[in-house]
Amino acid sequence: MVLHVIGLGLGDEKDVTIKGLEKIKAADFVYLEIYTAVLGVKKETLEAYYGQPIIEADRTLVESGCEEMLQRAKEHRVAFLVVGDPFCATTHSDLMLRAKEMDVRVDVVHNASIMNAVGICGLQMYRFGETVSIPFFEDSWRPESFYDKMVANQRMGLHTLCLLDIKVKEQTLQNMLRGNQIFEAPRFMTVNQAVDEILEVHEKRQELAQPVRGFGLARLGSDSQMIAAGTFEELRTFDFGGPLHSLVLCCPDTSLHELEMQFFDFFRTHHSLAG
Amino acid sequence: MVLHVIGLGLGDEKDVTIKGLEKIKAADFVYLEIYTAVLGVKKETLEAYYGQPIIEADRTLVESGCEEMLQRAKEHRVAFLVVGDPFCATTHSDLMLRAKEMDVRVDVVHNASIMNAVGICGLQMYRFGETVSIPFFEDSWRPESFYDKMVANQRMGLHTLCLLDIKVKEQTLQNMLRGNQIFEAPRFMTVNQAVDEILEVHEKRQELAQPVRGFGLARLGSDSQMIAAGTFEELRTFDFGGPLHSLVLCCPDTSLHELEMQFFDFFRTHHSLAG
Repeated sequence: MVLHVIGLGLGDEKDVTIKGLEKIKAADFVYLEIYTAVLGVKKETLEAYYGQPIIEADRTLVESGCEEMLQRAKEHRVAFLVVGDPFCATTHSDLMLRAKEMDVRVDVVHNASIMNAVGICGLQMYRFGETVSIPFFEDSWRPESFYDKMVANQRMGLHTLCLLDIKVKEQTLQNMLRGNQIFEAPRFMTVNQAVDEILEVHEKRQELAQPVRGFGLARLGSDSQMIAAGTFEELRTFDFGGPLHSLVLCCPDTSLHELEMQFFDFFRTHHSLAG
Repeated sequence: MVLHVIGLGLGDEKDVTIKGLEKIKAADFVYLEIYTAVLGVKKETLEAYYGQPIIEADRTLVESGCEEMLQRAKEHRVAFLVVGDPFCATTHSDLMLRAKEMDVRVDVVHNASIMNAVGICGLQMYRFGETVSIPFFEDSWRPESFYDKMVANQRMGLHTLCLLDIKVKEQTLQNMLRGNQIFEAPRFMTVNQAVDEILEVHEKRQELAQPVRGFGLARLGSDSQMIAAGTFEELRTFDFGGPLHSLVLCCPDTSLHELEMQFFDFFRTHHSLAG
């Protein structure tokens, strides 16, 4: 019948839109995607608010193609809930094309995502270049491709939004090989860790404009949201509290607009617009 | 007391979030910004749905600094409603800093905006470069700066979101000089007009990769939304219906991902995910 793909926004159960909430309440099955992002509230809170049981769609379920969900959408109203906006993750685009191949009607309910809510730091939205993802470095895997993109954005006078790594329901190689359904505790990269990794590459390459400046953002869209501006050396040790965190690298100082500079100065000393 | 800056999303009165709606209903004064974007529904529809009278904030009011609104926010709950997300327009960032200078608490309710909802065309969100604005050309004013940015994005293998010009409450020079409060009919640039202007510049400059391809999007977020993919020559004559329209220029064909190409092919023949 229909696959509603519904963005939940960024904060809590009340960040869904009226349109989205109506469709969730009317659905026969409700799935929640839990591995590319997390909301600030528990599944149980959502269930109580929607008056609907929720099926968690983890990495295994989503990457194996959500076959059960799509089959159900042929005959029923299925709601697939996604933190932020439905199109933040490639996986969901793929899902929608597959639904179309099965002749399932796809209905999208948009919402805020980090891609536009980052505007709250005061940098102009239209002056962002390519978005980069910062992965957790491992002993033998320390890729630098994000650094190349940051440098390229700066050379065009653009800001860079850095999405920070999330590891949910990861298995150790050993557990995976043995087929043990044992998962590691979730890990969310902090602004501090992201800055550490970027500066590690920067010490070697020295291609970012001096001073390296940016904004750290935590729990955007929630009541406890926190924003701090500073040099990367300052952000390296700033305590942003719990997840999720994001980071913005500013364009070179010489290209910052006056209003952007005012916001930078504001968030250097204040850490919220509410304060 | 507080200035709530509330994003209404893209479609109609039901695209506001639960959080936003609760704050609108509790507000002492409700302003609606009407000159940088328009919602698909009339002011009266919003008033009926919110149970609140709405004061329209036009260009004159917003650019003259919203003095009355900010003064009221010192003692009252004021809701300032913005189509899309609150941070799409520079003017609103400025307003928030001014509120902080007056010691007014600022509270932001995010929502979808064209900046992230454009993801529905299937191009990867993180592969967009700088956003450009396409202005209505005039006889003696035909700027090409947007073309430079499109070329720069393509050279980095990135897509370009083109925001199309809106003229609301414009005055003729004559009426302005005479102080007549007479306004011209609103004008919204179509995909066809935008493509015409881009191709006019391209004929001279020839710097975009061949073939020039993209997506036209109309009324994103509403039930009548329409998406069409094609070469710019094809989009030049495609009928997208009423406003608002947006346009996306694809990165060069050689850089398109397989999944992106699948979406391009899909929207070349289908004009909605629902169909």
